[in-house]
Amino acid sequence: MFKKVLVANRGEIALRVIRACKELGVKTVAIHSEADAASLHVRAADEHVCVGPPEAALSYRNIPNVLSAAEVTGADAIHPGYGFLSENAHFAEVCESIGVKFIGPTSENIALMGDKSKAREVVAKKGLPVTPGSPGELRSEQDAQEAAKTIGFPVIIKASAGGGGRGMRVVNKPEELARAFQAAQAEAKSTFGHDGVYLERYFLEPRHIEVQIVADNRGHVVHLGERDCSIQRRHQKLVEETPSPAIDEELRREIGRVAVQAVKAIRYCNVGTVEFLLDKDRNFFFMEVNTRIQVEHPITEMVTGIDLVKEQIRIASGMPLSFKQQDIKLNGHSFECRINAEDPEKFTPCPGQITKYSAPGGFGVRVDSAMEPNAVVVPYYDSLIAKLITHGRDRQEAMARMRRALDEFVIEGIKTTIPLHRRIFNDPDFQKGHVSTTFLDRFLAGQSS
Amino acid sequence: MFKKVLVANRGEIALRVIRACKELGVKTVAIHSEADAASLHVRAADEHVCVGPPEAALSYRNIPNVLSAAEVTGADAIHPGYGFLSENAHFAEVCESIGVKFIGPTSENIALMGDKSKAREVVAKKGLPVTPGSPGELRSEQDAQEAAKTIGFPVIIKASAGGGGRGMRVVNKPEELARAFQAAQAEAKSTFGHDGVYLERYFLEPRHIEVQIVADNRGHVVHLGERDCSIQRRHQKLVEETPSPAIDEELRREIGRVAVQAVKAIRYCNVGTVEFLLDKDRNFFFMEVNTRIQVEHPITEMVTGIDLVKEQIRIASGMPLSFKQQDIKLNGHSFECRINAEDPEKFTPCPGQITKYSAPGGFGVRVDSAMEPNAVVVPYYDSLIAKLITHGRDRQEAMARMRRALDEFVIEGIKTTIPLHRRIFNDPDFQKGHVSTTFLDRFLAGQSS
Repeated sequence: MFKKVLVANRGEIALRVIRACKELGVKTVAIHSEADAASLHVRAADEHVCVGPPEAALSYRNIPNVLSAAEVTGADAIHPGYGFLSENAHFAEVCESIGVKFIGPTSENIALMGDKSKAREVVAKKGLPVTPGSPGELRSEQDAQEAAKTIGFPVIIKASAGGGGRGMRVVNKPEELARAFQAAQAEAKSTFGHDGVYLERYFLEPRHIEVQIVADNRGHVVHLGERDCSIQRRHQKLVEETPSPAIDEELRREIGRVAVQAVKAIRYCNVGTVEFLLDKDRNFFFMEVNTRIQVEHPITEMVTGIDLVKEQIRIASGMPLSFKQQDIKLNGHSFECRINAEDPEKFTPCPGQITKYSAPGGFGVRVDSAMEPNAVVVPYYDSLIAKLITHGRDRQEAMARMRRALDEFVIEGIKTTIPLHRRIFNDPDFQKGHVSTTFLDRFLAGQSS
Repeated sequence: MFKKVLVANRGEIALRVIRACKELGVKTVAIHSEADAASLHVRAADEHVCVGPPEAALSYRNIPNVLSAAEVTGADAIHPGYGFLSENAHFAEVCESIGVKFIGPTSENIALMGDKSKAREVVAKKGLPVTPGSPGELRSEQDAQEAAKTIGFPVIIKASAGGGGRGMRVVNKPEELARAFQAAQAEAKSTFGHDGVYLERYFLEPRHIEVQIVADNRGHVVHLGERDCSIQRRHQKLVEETPSPAIDEELRREIGRVAVQAVKAIRYCNVGTVEFLLDKDRNFFFMEVNTRIQVEHPITEMVTGIDLVKEQIRIASGMPLSFKQQDIKLNGHSFECRINAEDPEKFTPCPGQITKYSAPGGFGVRVDSAMEPNAVVVPYYDSLIAKLITHGRDRQEAMARMRRALDEFVIEGIKTTIPLHRRIFNDPDFQKGHVSTTFLDRFLAGQSS
């Protein structure tokens, strides 16, 4: 096991990793920007190092500074959390080369899966179902027109290097394609530094289903069931649940099998997520692999009892999986609400000082957050400030708990998405599990009319 | 289902019941003494009524005032929590007679099990193992001497109406018996208003094992495994865990079977706990039945997934159990630490204003508490201010989580038992599960030397 882990992140996920390390008896180093010196994650760690000014590119994403912090403190491993350097193959490679263990998959895994277009190709070659689309990156508008004609409109153009909804364009008819192609390329270039785009069939009311997988470096791969992340706004997830109301035992086995095969095809190691679209006829299609711990990982922990962050650390230290596929039992149901520091009407960030903070508690309620009374939400980073997770014997109970917990949650001084979550959990369609990735936009349109 | 439940309690257990009601869609009425007007449990309820001055006898235990509050607010049921009126057969009877449902067992159940000496008789008659002792109440010192001679010293004298360690005396040799008998009688009289006492063999290093049972009013009884509550100081539990490190699958089935038979013998209904002593040779003996929800109920909830307070309410409303014995699976391991507002060295109450309060969070951590920043711990009631509960895949993980969570818990302004819990969880014997009811006294003696 490692002696000291540097946590190359901030906020709730940094605290999450520090908690896992403490439970494993591993010392921790927090890094922070100048804006985060007073943060809870800094105080929770055994040591801390300031790695630069507030802008992430100069601190949390600053590879030389992060590696210097590891060297100065003698950390033998780095946990990247999500975002920032977590899916940066170059960073993983540099860590490997200087003998600091990167807690995550190999740099090859990250590079291959980071190229979304190539990942689709690899998976399709194994005979697994991928969303119908262009065979690789589109070389020209002409290329795009031909691919779109073959698979039929509507289509969606996506950045190969993409993620988080950036560089995406939905195209409904041929005459819109040229402009969308150019816009997606330009956005891809400016956001990711690479203008490669590809094209997929655009499903009208799909569900976003992702399968959690865990793989050690001895070739053992186990899946931990699916998460339904269909409640999204502009491709940003807002509410997640497991199990999915749309998936029965048979489909779960099948999609789990495909997910395991997909990651075995690339000799994937550590924790990862295989994302699928599920259409109304229960067909599912591979979209991509996320090579990091995900924001929504807690709901899988709630129903399996497996601590995914500890598992990441154990695997990275060379330990084999402590369970087999047949050991995995899904107990009950779990929801997660992402509490963002945002105006819940306009979705604009709402930084500021928290004047009052009181988190809910009791049976079946989990809060992952680095907030506290008088904490300041700074404007430089992601607006996620807390994850509220509930667990119940069944969907009904987990939902009732979420409503109860949302009512208890007190955050004053800034605006948050809590009121929006309350409305979602009172919606009859949501309550019945009748949702797709278009639910939230329709819901918001309905609310404002 | 009920329309409105009056919660006849305060603090964490009142909040616990209010949370359960909210999840069931039932309205709630809080009661409070003049000392508790600003308490969280009062704000959490839909309505609240002040029932009298700070002294519990004049407010929380004041039957006419509590019933008036129910009448004024139109509550159709009363949940008594633990302590106060929860094991008052007369109160349960009055509730029954005026048509307000008492959420708990029948007044006959309470009366019979409230007489500890009679309860032993009833259970022994069914052929179930009870601690060797006097057949009924002791009529005289002479009686006591004869009973003690028959079962052998040491013995313990207990109040028939007792509970919570009051009215108990350990007697090591015949010449100590007379004084102990008189002292126990006098304490029983002054504490419980009834001077009946009985006598049992005093086991030297037993474990306190209790079995959670759930019984509906159709004769279905299910047990939810055991809790090991051996970490006690002066018969007051401080740390509880489930499963017990001393109990294997076979013994669990056997002790569970006996617990179910014991409550079936008295047609028990609702949630209850059957308490046993377990000696070093794995013999177990019935002690008593607690006819209320217990402080330590959360650890059973963590490993079974069953919400015991909701179950109490459902059963009281006439619903059958929603599970059978074979549905009960014990998942993982759970600990509870009772955080008391006490000097952890002297065990003296330590009321006052909380200046800073920050509860731990994350995976596998549950906090049941009605505390908050700036709350005032008043001197009139029990010193329990928070229950810290952890769950893990195994004992090791649940223990590591507890250490981590204890480190995170910040309560400033008053003294608490948190430092003592930290020391207990770092003790090698405790870590190995090598404990008995004498552990804590020896531990404290060792610490202070």
